[in-house]
Amino acid sequence: MNIYDVSARAGVSIATVSRVLNGSPNVSEKTRIRILAVMEELGYKPNIFARGLGLDTMKTVGIMCSDSSDPYLASAIYFLERELRGCGYDAILSCTGASLSRKRQYFELLLSKRVDAMILAGSKFIEMNPEDNAYLTEAAAGLPIMLINCFLDAPGIYSTVCDDHAAMYETAGRLIRSGRKRILYLYSSHSYSGVNKRQGYEDALNAHGLPVRGELIRRCDKDPGQAKELLLSLDDSGVAFDAVMTSDDSLAVGAVKYAHAKGLAVPKQLAVVGYNNSTLSRCTDPEISSVDTKVEALCTAAVRSLMKILGGEENVAKKTTIAAEFVRRQTTDP
Amino acid sequence: MNIYDVSARAGVSIATVSRVLNGSPNVSEKTRIRILAVMEELGYKPNIFARGLGLDTMKTVGIMCSDSSDPYLASAIYFLERELRGCGYDAILSCTGASLSRKRQYFELLLSKRVDAMILAGSKFIEMNPEDNAYLTEAAAGLPIMLINCFLDAPGIYSTVCDDHAAMYETAGRLIRSGRKRILYLYSSHSYSGVNKRQGYEDALNAHGLPVRGELIRRCDKDPGQAKELLLSLDDSGVAFDAVMTSDDSLAVGAVKYAHAKGLAVPKQLAVVGYNNSTLSRCTDPEISSVDTKVEALCTAAVRSLMKILGGEENVAKKTTIAAEFVRRQTTDP
Repeated sequence: MNIYDVSARAGVSIATVSRVLNGSPNVSEKTRIRILAVMEELGYKPNIFARGLGLDTMKTVGIMCSDSSDPYLASAIYFLERELRGCGYDAILSCTGASLSRKRQYFELLLSKRVDAMILAGSKFIEMNPEDNAYLTEAAAGLPIMLINCFLDAPGIYSTVCDDHAAMYETAGRLIRSGRKRILYLYSSHSYSGVNKRQGYEDALNAHGLPVRGELIRRCDKDPGQAKELLLSLDDSGVAFDAVMTSDDSLAVGAVKYAHAKGLAVPKQLAVVGYNNSTLSRCTDPEISSVDTKVEALCTAAVRSLMKILGGEENVAKKTTIAAEFVRRQTTDP
Repeated sequence: MNIYDVSARAGVSIATVSRVLNGSPNVSEKTRIRILAVMEELGYKPNIFARGLGLDTMKTVGIMCSDSSDPYLASAIYFLERELRGCGYDAILSCTGASLSRKRQYFELLLSKRVDAMILAGSKFIEMNPEDNAYLTEAAAGLPIMLINCFLDAPGIYSTVCDDHAAMYETAGRLIRSGRKRILYLYSSHSYSGVNKRQGYEDALNAHGLPVRGELIRRCDKDPGQAKELLLSLDDSGVAFDAVMTSDDSLAVGAVKYAHAKGLAVPKQLAVVGYNNSTLSRCTDPEISSVDTKVEALCTAAVRSLMKILGGEENVAKKTTIAAEFVRRQTTDP
């Protein structure tokens, strides 16, 4: 007996049942009473997070990501699937792309498969406009939603995040202490994680009395060739910088290629720092110092939390934060 | 009504029902008669590949791969999931690792979820010993099995492969025509695809009257650092080579790093060719010429075949071969 049975018997959508469970005002009184009557008739108790204990489970978790071929997300999916399988759960994968309507559509599709929980991997699932997250907060009345590297403060939604702000704050501080005065920040996304990273960079500049310059904060797609071209064009237009911090290793690879193209000594004339500590950081000469964002630890912690929730435990942490680690290679000073 | 109902009613495993459907001799006459009686009783018709037409479908396909964080397999999973979803099918992902017992166990688990088909991505699912493939040929009586970049000649098993032999044959020919005499071949696996690649290399040497030298055929894990170290140690022990062909871009990155370490001009003193045309091939300076193995086309073709099979079409090609394409960058002669 679960939310889907209630929805079918009452002839309303799952979202509507969720709204009633959530106490949302966006349900007519007539519908609310009908749904409550069906719940009573079916003996339904909204103790749905403990489904894992009972028989009413498909032992299946939906995993959504924007793009499973992104190296960071590919690793996350690998670790999530491994941990879930270790707990006897199947993973249904859904790659949504970036559009909100597609994300909502695929989310509803997975819900209709009676998954026991949803895991949203990557920081692109929470929108700036709260209304755009309503489909998640409503669904979270019916099943737990785990966010990997993203955060939303709502009942039934649990986050496991890397402390991107601290990682960027420390990285920028390290560069500043080694004498860098004009640190270019190259990023690819305005996501939850993207915003924290940039804030860490800006806060470090402020803490060290350096100005935050708009001309040194640049967006670029995750592509080494595009990053290289962007830096060459900044150079052409007279923008000076002695270090490049990036939100992804692919951008740092572009910075090393830019240094090669201009004959700059790395790190003497240009320091470069990657992010995510992927294989890309070990492909260039010199190899790239990068921030290990601990994706395996994140995924393991998220599945551990999920199993507690499905097992009926209360007081599971709403937000688990894991520290990143700076991995020094050859593109930064000792 | 399907093979699972028959298995449950007859009190035998799915594999045993499959064996009866397959006409396998490894079933006792008593069991065979009992299963046939259950089929008759249930009105079961083994037209199971056409399930997609009927109601007896979960609209779900199992995807197995050894490691979803491998860049090639990550791309394959992305394209497979996208194509399946476009056809209204969910993808249950299972990352098996390399052990045969784990592959069998996960395969059976997915079968028990009543998937409509199985897709095995990557060339590591077919074993040398035919007995080790029996679980696949038996299951293929109950549902279609699609192999991506692998091949097994058995009823119900369909392959979509890249022509690795031709790709390597042409790559080696290209290097030989540009004057290379001692081409080192660096590979990571003895899989179906791995065997074809190596054979293409050897056949090209033979066709051009060059000797196949064991000392120039070396195995290495897919890791740039390990590949670099291996080449340095070959150099130390007096093994000479003027080109490096690889079965994966990660190994080619190692060859470029080796050239940097020894101060060799690329491609003048050392030509390097990667395989799979991944982002890694664009991270080094010089950028690496690589073989595009057309993973998107492979996955699209495999799902298109699968939909025909599930739609009840007959005469779907048992093997679809897609040509690779050489992408010249800066590590080979024009």
